[in-house]
Amino acid sequence: MVSKTTSLADRILSGEVRAAARLMRYIDDGMPGAGEELKKLYPHTGKAYLLGITGLPGAGKSTLVNRIVEHLRKDDLTVGLVLVDPTSPFSGGAILGDRVRMAHHFTDPGVFIRSLATRGHLGGLSWCTNDVVNVLDSMGKDVVIIETVGVGQDETEIVSMAHTTVVVLTPGMGDEIQAIKAGILEVGDVFVVNKARREGADRAVRDLETMLSMKGWKADEFRPPVVKTEALYDEGLDEMMDAIGRHRAFIEGGQGLKKKRIERARYELIELLKEGLLSAVVRTQGGEDAFDVIAAAIAARDSDPYTEVNRIIAGALKRPGG
Amino acid sequence: MVSKTTSLADRILSGEVRAAARLMRYIDDGMPGAGEELKKLYPHTGKAYLLGITGLPGAGKSTLVNRIVEHLRKDDLTVGLVLVDPTSPFSGGAILGDRVRMAHHFTDPGVFIRSLATRGHLGGLSWCTNDVVNVLDSMGKDVVIIETVGVGQDETEIVSMAHTTVVVLTPGMGDEIQAIKAGILEVGDVFVVNKARREGADRAVRDLETMLSMKGWKADEFRPPVVKTEALYDEGLDEMMDAIGRHRAFIEGGQGLKKKRIERARYELIELLKEGLLSAVVRTQGGEDAFDVIAAAIAARDSDPYTEVNRIIAGALKRPGG
Repeated sequence: MVSKTTSLADRILSGEVRAAARLMRYIDDGMPGAGEELKKLYPHTGKAYLLGITGLPGAGKSTLVNRIVEHLRKDDLTVGLVLVDPTSPFSGGAILGDRVRMAHHFTDPGVFIRSLATRGHLGGLSWCTNDVVNVLDSMGKDVVIIETVGVGQDETEIVSMAHTTVVVLTPGMGDEIQAIKAGILEVGDVFVVNKARREGADRAVRDLETMLSMKGWKADEFRPPVVKTEALYDEGLDEMMDAIGRHRAFIEGGQGLKKKRIERARYELIELLKEGLLSAVVRTQGGEDAFDVIAAAIAARDSDPYTEVNRIIAGALKRPGG
Repeated sequence: MVSKTTSLADRILSGEVRAAARLMRYIDDGMPGAGEELKKLYPHTGKAYLLGITGLPGAGKSTLVNRIVEHLRKDDLTVGLVLVDPTSPFSGGAILGDRVRMAHHFTDPGVFIRSLATRGHLGGLSWCTNDVVNVLDSMGKDVVIIETVGVGQDETEIVSMAHTTVVVLTPGMGDEIQAIKAGILEVGDVFVVNKARREGADRAVRDLETMLSMKGWKADEFRPPVVKTEALYDEGLDEMMDAIGRHRAFIEGGQGLKKKRIERARYELIELLKEGLLSAVVRTQGGEDAFDVIAAAIAARDSDPYTEVNRIIAGALKRPGG
């Protein structure tokens, strides 16, 4: 029996799923006590394999993730799933449509699903995602999947977190590929052309291969495979899982995984620090309301943001000049 | 004659374009002296109209922005253009393809173009974009256009900056619209269905209108117009400029613009504060290298990020508990 005075962290480590769900809510709400629990969980993390899935809206990522979960479950691996939704900064409403497809996993005790909305957290979303990934990791999930929709900033974040990043594209995205290729080529460890029954799938694969070959790979680098899938009909999934497995084997074979772990730790540290510093300083200013007064003065050009920030930092830090 | 000892800010205010270009480079490189110059420029800002253009890659935003610049120049308005590119976090290479279309504006003294790459700035991109917008504003540009590619976080940022936000979509984005509608409906002041010669343009307009009508607009709210354009052939641009003009007239007529200015000032303040706090604290730690050591300890589970962040904050702030 777990007593009511046992910490959330202890309850999570003893396998209590509801305790994990509660801590995730605390994290999302920015409750100050969450940090203490996360600190206790941290020594039990670092075991899960972190798989990032990214791509533009409409690429069929949710269906694909759904299939990946099925494949992992068939191999008797437990799965944590973090779905990062782009959300209205105003209404805070999350996009639920695609999530319905995940429904049958909700009753599987080997799968834990958590949606995170990218609503206006002061410090961005990343610290929150990191924390949730850590909870899933401490719960003993074998694989934690982080699904984000994104180009630009979100993409950078997923790469800093995941051990293997899968970029999902679709045929007929000629323009889009043109526009984002400079970014995606460096982001993906595995490229997936999903909706492969559509016209142009082979061409999309060839285009990607051509772009990748122009990069010039060194012998000790992993050249990302390009695979075709039609997730809706469960086609090409074995090839994709195999490609993911090859990348995993590659980074586990050398120094890759160790480097990625240090990179992620650095990223976690900086994200938490940004958030922690800002929160602490906002509190010393008397909360966010104080900022409204300053903002009004700046908007009226009675002050400027540079002067105000220098003043706040000088007041808050022991050695603001460094 | 402007002497060599005159500050960059003075030279910018006296109309020296090269001084503006130099300050923008300093901003991009994170040079500590840039803040002093920006402080001097700030009282001269707040006059430009800030127009945000966002949408997925491939929507034809660059061509559209090109047309908007032409239309504004015909009305003898000067234009500042900030192009925010999603870039590889690793190579730092910017996407230049679409920029070629802007080429003929480069020789127009009434237009100042600046590309910003979203490479791994510690504090994110926004503070940097804000600063560049302020320089363009202080130069006396009538309209400053901020073009971003984005879903998710980038979208939120543009809304916090711009007075009018234009969301660009294309026909046949059924899936995409489905996926992002929850976000875009609240972000756009004007919706543009570009590439309107493609099949499905009228349907895309109808779909958007339907979604917008479901929102239920109050009498004192601006209901975003939906316009069709084919930027490549300069079709629908007058209608779009008219829609933008109507939104501008609406927010200038009531308290809208004042509110937006305060909102932007608040956003600038918080972004600068995040960046400033982090930079100052990183310096007190002996630079970013010190973080590598901590990150290695965290990755090895000899420590955890929560403990490290608490320690750093306790060491850096006068009243860490607030």
